[in-house]
Amino acid sequence: MAPLDIPRLAVGDRVQHELLVREREDKQTKSGDPFVVLKLGNASGLIGANVWKEDVPQVQGVRPGQVVQVIGTVEVYQGRRQLKLTAPPRVVPLGNASADDFLPRIAQPVETLWAKVDSWRAEMRGALRRAVDLFFADEAFRAEFARSPGATRGHHAVVGGLLLHSCEVAEIARHSVQVMGGDVALVTAGALLHDIGKTRSYAVELAGFDYTRAGQLLGHIVLGSLMLDERLATLPEQDRLAEEQRLELHHFIQSHHGILEYGAAVRPMTLEAEILHFADQTSAKGNDFSEAVVDADLFPADDVEFSTKRSWRLERRVWKRRHRWD
Amino acid sequence: MAPLDIPRLAVGDRVQHELLVREREDKQTKSGDPFVVLKLGNASGLIGANVWKEDVPQVQGVRPGQVVQVIGTVEVYQGRRQLKLTAPPRVVPLGNASADDFLPRIAQPVETLWAKVDSWRAEMRGALRRAVDLFFADEAFRAEFARSPGATRGHHAVVGGLLLHSCEVAEIARHSVQVMGGDVALVTAGALLHDIGKTRSYAVELAGFDYTRAGQLLGHIVLGSLMLDERLATLPEQDRLAEEQRLELHHFIQSHHGILEYGAAVRPMTLEAEILHFADQTSAKGNDFSEAVVDADLFPADDVEFSTKRSWRLERRVWKRRHRWD
Amino acid sequence: MAPLDIPRLAVGDRVQHELLVREREDKQTKSGDPFVVLKLGNASGLIGANVWKEDVPQVQGVRPGQVVQVIGTVEVYQGRRQLKLTAPPRVVPLGNASADDFLPRIAQPVETLWAKVDSWRAEMRGALRRAVDLFFADEAFRAEFARSPGATRGHHAVVGGLLLHSCEVAEIARHSVQVMGGDVALVTAGALLHDIGKTRSYAVELAGFDYTRAGQLLGHIVLGSLMLDERLATLPEQDRLAEEQRLELHHFIQSHHGILEYGAAVRPMTLEAEILHFADQTSAKGNDFSEAVVDADLFPADDVEFSTKRSWRLERRVWKRRHRWD
Amino acid sequence: MAPLDIPRLAVGDRVQHELLVREREDKQTKSGDPFVVLKLGNASGLIGANVWKEDVPQVQGVRPGQVVQVIGTVEVYQGRRQLKLTAPPRVVPLGNASADDFLPRIAQPVETLWAKVDSWRAEMRGALRRAVDLFFADEAFRAEFARSPGATRGHHAVVGGLLLHSCEVAEIARHSVQVMGGDVALVTAGALLHDIGKTRSYAVELAGFDYTRAGQLLGHIVLGSLMLDERLATLPEQDRLAEEQRLELHHFIQSHHGILEYGAAVRPMTLEAEILHFADQTSAKGNDFSEAVVDADLFPADDVEFSTKRSWRLERRVWKRRHRWD
Amino acid sequence: MAPLDIPRLAVGDRVQHELLVREREDKQTKSGDPFVVLKLGNASGLIGANVWKEDVPQVQGVRPGQVVQVIGTVEVYQGRRQLKLTAPPRVVPLGNASADDFLPRIAQPVETLWAKVDSWRAEMRGALRRAVDLFFADEAFRAEFARSPGATRGHHAVVGGLLLHSCEVAEIARHSVQVMGGDVALVTAGALLHDIGKTRSYAVELAGFDYTRAGQLLGHIVLGSLMLDERLATLPEQDRLAEEQRLELHHFIQSHHGILEYGAAVRPMTLEAEILHFADQTSAKGNDFSEAVVDADLFPADDVEFSTKRSWRLERRVWKRRHRWD
Amino acid sequence: MAPLDIPRLAVGDRVQHELLVREREDKQTKSGDPFVVLKLGNASGLIGANVWKEDVPQVQGVRPGQVVQVIGTVEVYQGRRQLKLTAPPRVVPLGNASADDFLPRIAQPVETLWAKVDSWRAEMRGALRRAVDLFFADEAFRAEFARSPGATRGHHAVVGGLLLHSCEVAEIARHSVQVMGGDVALVTAGALLHDIGKTRSYAVELAGFDYTRAGQLLGHIVLGSLMLDERLATLPEQDRLAEEQRLELHHFIQSHHGILEYGAAVRPMTLEAEILHFADQTSAKGNDFSEAVVDADLFPADDVEFSTKRSWRLERRVWKRRHRWD
Repeated sequence: MAPLDIPRLAVGDRVQHELLVREREDKQTKSGDPFVVLKLGNASGLIGANVWKEDVPQVQGVRPGQVVQVIGTVEVYQGRRQLKLTAPPRVVPLGNASADDFLPRIAQPVETLWAKVDSWRAEMRGALRRAVDLFFADEAFRAEFARSPGATRGHHAVVGGLLLHSCEVAEIARHSVQVMGGDVALVTAGALLHDIGKTRSYAVELAGFDYTRAGQLLGHIVLGSLMLDERLATLPEQDRLAEEQRLELHHFIQSHHGILEYGAAVRPMTLEAEILHFADQTSAKGNDFSEAVVDADLFPADDVEFSTKRSWRLERRVWKRRHRWD
Repeated sequence: MAPLDIPRLAVGDRVQHELLVREREDKQTKSGDPFVVLKLGNASGLIGANVWKEDVPQVQGVRPGQVVQVIGTVEVYQGRRQLKLTAPPRVVPLGNASADDFLPRIAQPVETLWAKVDSWRAEMRGALRRAVDLFFADEAFRAEFARSPGATRGHHAVVGGLLLHSCEVAEIARHSVQVMGGDVALVTAGALLHDIGKTRSYAVELAGFDYTRAGQLLGHIVLGSLMLDERLATLPEQDRLAEEQRLELHHFIQSHHGILEYGAAVRPMTLEAEILHFADQTSAKGNDFSEAVVDADLFPADDVEFSTKRSWRLERRVWKRRHRWD
Repeated sequence: MAPLDIPRLAVGDRVQHELLVREREDKQTKSGDPFVVLKLGNASGLIGANVWKEDVPQVQGVRPGQVVQVIGTVEVYQGRRQLKLTAPPRVVPLGNASADDFLPRIAQPVETLWAKVDSWRAEMRGALRRAVDLFFADEAFRAEFARSPGATRGHHAVVGGLLLHSCEVAEIARHSVQVMGGDVALVTAGALLHDIGKTRSYAVELAGFDYTRAGQLLGHIVLGSLMLDERLATLPEQDRLAEEQRLELHHFIQSHHGILEYGAAVRPMTLEAEILHFADQTSAKGNDFSEAVVDADLFPADDVEFSTKRSWRLERRVWKRRHRWD
Repeated sequence: MAPLDIPRLAVGDRVQHELLVREREDKQTKSGDPFVVLKLGNASGLIGANVWKEDVPQVQGVRPGQVVQVIGTVEVYQGRRQLKLTAPPRVVPLGNASADDFLPRIAQPVETLWAKVDSWRAEMRGALRRAVDLFFADEAFRAEFARSPGATRGHHAVVGGLLLHSCEVAEIARHSVQVMGGDVALVTAGALLHDIGKTRSYAVELAGFDYTRAGQLLGHIVLGSLMLDERLATLPEQDRLAEEQRLELHHFIQSHHGILEYGAAVRPMTLEAEILHFADQTSAKGNDFSEAVVDADLFPADDVEFSTKRSWRLERRVWKRRHRWD
Repeated sequence: MAPLDIPRLAVGDRVQHELLVREREDKQTKSGDPFVVLKLGNASGLIGANVWKEDVPQVQGVRPGQVVQVIGTVEVYQGRRQLKLTAPPRVVPLGNASADDFLPRIAQPVETLWAKVDSWRAEMRGALRRAVDLFFADEAFRAEFARSPGATRGHHAVVGGLLLHSCEVAEIARHSVQVMGGDVALVTAGALLHDIGKTRSYAVELAGFDYTRAGQLLGHIVLGSLMLDERLATLPEQDRLAEEQRLELHHFIQSHHGILEYGAAVRPMTLEAEILHFADQTSAKGNDFSEAVVDADLFPADDVEFSTKRSWRLERRVWKRRHRWD
Repeated sequence: MAPLDIPRLAVGDRVQHELLVREREDKQTKSGDPFVVLKLGNASGLIGANVWKEDVPQVQGVRPGQVVQVIGTVEVYQGRRQLKLTAPPRVVPLGNASADDFLPRIAQPVETLWAKVDSWRAEMRGALRRAVDLFFADEAFRAEFARSPGATRGHHAVVGGLLLHSCEVAEIARHSVQVMGGDVALVTAGALLHDIGKTRSYAVELAGFDYTRAGQLLGHIVLGSLMLDERLATLPEQDRLAEEQRLELHHFIQSHHGILEYGAAVRPMTLEAEILHFADQTSAKGNDFSEAVVDADLFPADDVEFSTKRSWRLERRVWKRRHRWD
């Protein structure tokens, strides 16, 4: 059976699918009755399910991180679609299906993205290629990188988000550097490496995305430089990068947030580092806009033209153009 | 005779060329002797000439805006190259040579840039095409636009700078919109129109670039919207833009500086307006970096790796990479 | 029957009046029961009415924008006065009574305000008079202007608020210019024109005040300048304003918010523009203070001396002085 | 002989007047020759005089704070008018002429200003009158207050500036409070008292204005409150202000800078305190504009329309309108 | 019976103790039923008690500020411990037990802190000693000072908090001044005097801590200087402080917040004032951290390593280290 | 011969000593004559020497980084003391005297400071001791650390400044942690390690202090973490730090600037990290104050009480107290 397409569910639809329990909250109504709020999801998205008083025993053993067989129908509660369960959810053994299949994930196949990365790598030469390959020719790193989100919440906060974001940044930066006159291979390396620290900053767990301890205490920018030095140290003597080369790669990582207020250790000091910064912003904010216009919290009805509130990611209201230009 | 290539002048070079007088300052030494500081230039750049006490009478009639025949040699004064005049400069009648030939100008031929603009226009349809053509199919406007600098000082502050900058922004925005999923023709129109107000904000005079009265009192963003409405009103009734379309074009102009602190009337509310903003930044800051690394004020000697002071345009020090990656 | 004086309603008062339905929200209690929250109002203010479970059918057809005959009593719910309906509200045909009668409105008669405006116009001469008359001698514009609020929420957010605010600004600016030595007629023109764009920024609808599409995408400052140029273009050739005059009027509009962070395109560059800015602030903040000390959200009881929370309009707590000075 | 009108001096004018030596700097040219820069002035303004090498002995005994008989002619040096001395300046005994006569001072007669203050006082009643009279019915305080500048440099930085500024603030605030609906007598008292601390913050000396030690270490806002309490404590028991009254007067002083960044201890919490703040700004910035348009540093020639640089007091460029409206 | 140790209460514990009613809120459930939320406390902390529909009559006469005999058990409601009352609370006459005994208070005995203060005073000589003794040798002031909290909410917001905070600041500043080379006795005096204004800024009432009118309108910094001058004026003529000495003590008070944005009237201008500022921060933020790691709102469970939300006092998340170093 | 005590030189003093040439500038007077500005110094400080026209040949071979025998007398030029050379300076071979002897250096003997560091190390146990010893038990690192300044200009900008600053920070933080209740050994380790990256950020050369390439591109905070990981990786497996321990040491380095605007990657999340931040500030600003009051640029004469301009290091004016307290 095809997986459930959650964003397309309409009121009245019947659901009988395996879903991951992402959150569970045990609450009480003002009159003291217990009820349970579940968040259920798969790769396509999330949907809530409120379980009231008399049905609470049905979900007694249900815990975040479990995959359950859900039977119910879609209804509306306080302006949002939710599932009304019509039978107790049944815990399903994961077997050899990967639990990751139930996490939200990018729409693109990762193979397409890796193909781009690999074609860019193929263009690189010498020290640059060696540095990039320390990460991107290593299967273990590729697996981690492709699984990591771009953020715990915010832009690209899905499995594969880091890979997708890095590819977008690389594509945009490559083109901008061509227009403005800089080193394409170099900025591509910067784009691929700029966020590597996120693989150690975010934990991907069945219950959702969260910061790791290292992510909390140091942040992905510092972690990226620590990872870079760790791998550079493994190069055989004769393959070592020159000190200037090593510092330039670190500089991409340390300056990509542009200004100190946003976490950069230093401001970009080269054309390529400056362009990487703007490419990073373009991918991040572009993703914010694309997701904002399909976010039912911001656009609760089809005929809403201006989001009814500010997007916390964009810190402003968003316009969903309803006219055509052609 | 080929025009003088000012940036390439070396100490000891002999000069015998026509140059534009860009500035003249009459000063006195501490001991009360008069001297004159001239700034002379052509399309390739600027060079100073100090005229001391006894030679002051030789430059008596020389005024900013004149073209003069200059004879002299290149020497160094207080760490900067300057011209030592060996004969009195002679004022040259402009004849049918355009005075603009002596102003600093972009290196690219404008035809190449117009060809790009016209090919983008050719892709546009309907209302979008009509709006863009109100400006870019009008020869008078094209002439003004191609003569205007991108700023009085700062990025693209040369004749043709506005055209070059607009093309860079369009190219970058078009590609970014393709990567992030938006309307390419629309963002191209936004890029071409975003800075049209600069044609009324900057005065191009032989004595240099300056703000017009309108530029001082209103700024190029407001002027752009006033110009847009002025031309839109000339469209025949049946060709008028829908109100939403008209507002969206204004929104590109009004939001392209991104945040209010930088002069935007509103923050970008669509994917395309947001991307236009970052493309604008990429072109402007990219130009700042390209010019910084060849700026003798920042890099007074060939072996200087870090600019000896902060670039006022970039508000930071700049790194001129001296190593190679390939 | 005299219209209901909503701010003066006391607990236990009986209500039998026509009120406008300003908002309707359909909700559910935690135990799943439906209830409806209505906001009802007239020119004097707003009051809520919660309709519980069993009474929901009584309000089935009630929609924002309708005028309904309301029967009920005033009670307190969660610390706020509200109406308890004792009979189903009955929709009343508007007939020839204007719907505007039910919107909150300024206490002053508009005639008094217009008389001031007209006496100030009578003092003006030449180009200044012609420019101001393009708007203020036009009955259609006067009607729009007198209907517009000063904001959707915040200072002067009532029908007639824009007219009242503009008069206050003019009165204050005229006097300040007299004290500090500037051109009184000129600053009066600036005061009358500074907010004209608000007539196109705010929509006055039965369901309340909201931003128009143009208000969202451009804001009232840009709209003001577009309106000014639109009307100036209609003057016969011989009556046209000199370019400097036209730019000075635009400069008042564009600089009246004082600094870029608050939406000004440019900072005030003349004594009169600077004084207009402070007069605008004095009227706006003065109105905020006057409304704060009678706002039951800030001063929930008569003996409260310091507002129990910060006013969001003033971003600080407010003191309601309880002592006398005389 | 009428005192010299310094701002009206033209090149070539002959000077034979008594002037105060405001500054003296002993310098050396690059070639090691000594020269002296004098700043000379009277109530109308300041003018410089450079004394070169051979003439240095002529000014040997001349010191800041002396009044000297000056003989010379007006010439231009490095774009600024200056005096060329044609005879050695002769020190003049002050006799019974007050040295203050040579300091820059307000154009208005102080009697006119005091008449206003006294008429406002006459309107006050009870505790308010008693508090204001503690300062403004005391001749010693009036003398200090009328001698104090409004700042050491910046707005109203002339003898009498504090009195003039306080009257402007009072006039503006009184009118604004009338428009917006507050207590006129109260805000007048606030206006008169708000800057009393400046009498202890600024030292008026023949060599110019400077901060006192107390002005440096505490600032005029704190000093104002200390002075208020000091005098309030002298009232007989039965005349004491109520605690609320005393606090409200302090609140005017402490909040008149509006926000903490500008030195307010608290933000204004009443309508009257808020209006006092804007009136203070209007007077200060209004004075800045009036002085900017006659400042030869900003407008070095008659046909300069936009100041050639930013005014440090206004932090922007200033427009000197050259067109007429009537 | 030993007082109840509220922070150590575990679910299921039985309570039968006297507690102070700190807050009472009368609410209604969505279905219209009344309920009451009580906050009960003693010197060790606070705990909530929800009283539902049928039990509301039991708490009818209970008011904030009363001491009541409470009987009940500890349970969990919406993730927080609360008391479930099993009998109606009975109001207890205060008798000769001080009401203060029920307010939260510092853990240290005040005698220990006073002993420190007095030993530091014993080291001081001359004018410094006289100034400090005006406050700290006065029993009435000592009583007020020892009762005052350090804030109404935030750091040291407990009875005795001001005394504890002042001692911490003194200890830290004394040591830092020793390391950096300044005047130890002087900075000690500054530390003891810097927050004296808080005794007039905060009201300690049975219902909790709140700002006084003076605290709202002026703040503790201004109040501190007013108190200092008030007492200095009582010194006999021959014991008066020199003007410089007096100003330096005021300067400590006025500059201790470091920058104007945080309420300082001036920035610290001496080594000792600067060090006092950092000592003040160290004590305040140190207290914030110490309380954050035991705050169940931030760390709702024992195994939570990073606070689940930002501390509003520290404006960041907090780490509770769970590893050992030894 | 004892080295010259430069700060104590008085006008008229005769100099015949070896000094290091720190800077040389070749300039021209307005009349075209060449002159040379030398900066000469030793461990005690710096003094300038202007060499005029006819004497320029005497200094022809003199270059920064050379030690020269200087003969001359002290005079005043443009308000500053300078050397007037009375004989040509003679270049002195360095021989086995260390060139470092001529650089400005801390007054304290390094042995005293190392003794403190070593006694603190002796208190540490286990992983903490191992981590600290990786640096501070390594003679090569100690030599680098003791030679490094605390900044290129600003606080502790002398040889040995880093060691002195680190000791001050440790002393202050240890005491503050004792007062506020934290882990003394841990914060000591944080203090010793927080600035280790400065050894790779600053270059100590005879011509003065400058940033290294790594210091420019990454800054000392990132470099510190890279150095820490580099050395931690050398520990034998069984001695490795637990991951939490390693992250906590990095957290000290990354958070010690307190807020992102000042270069911290993250804000301090523990009591010890917060206290380290304030101790760092106390040492830095304390040093700024101590040096400000003896800086002749700020206090050009003995009787100057307030610095005549703002200290750029403290961004404010400084008070040099002239009264006594005892």
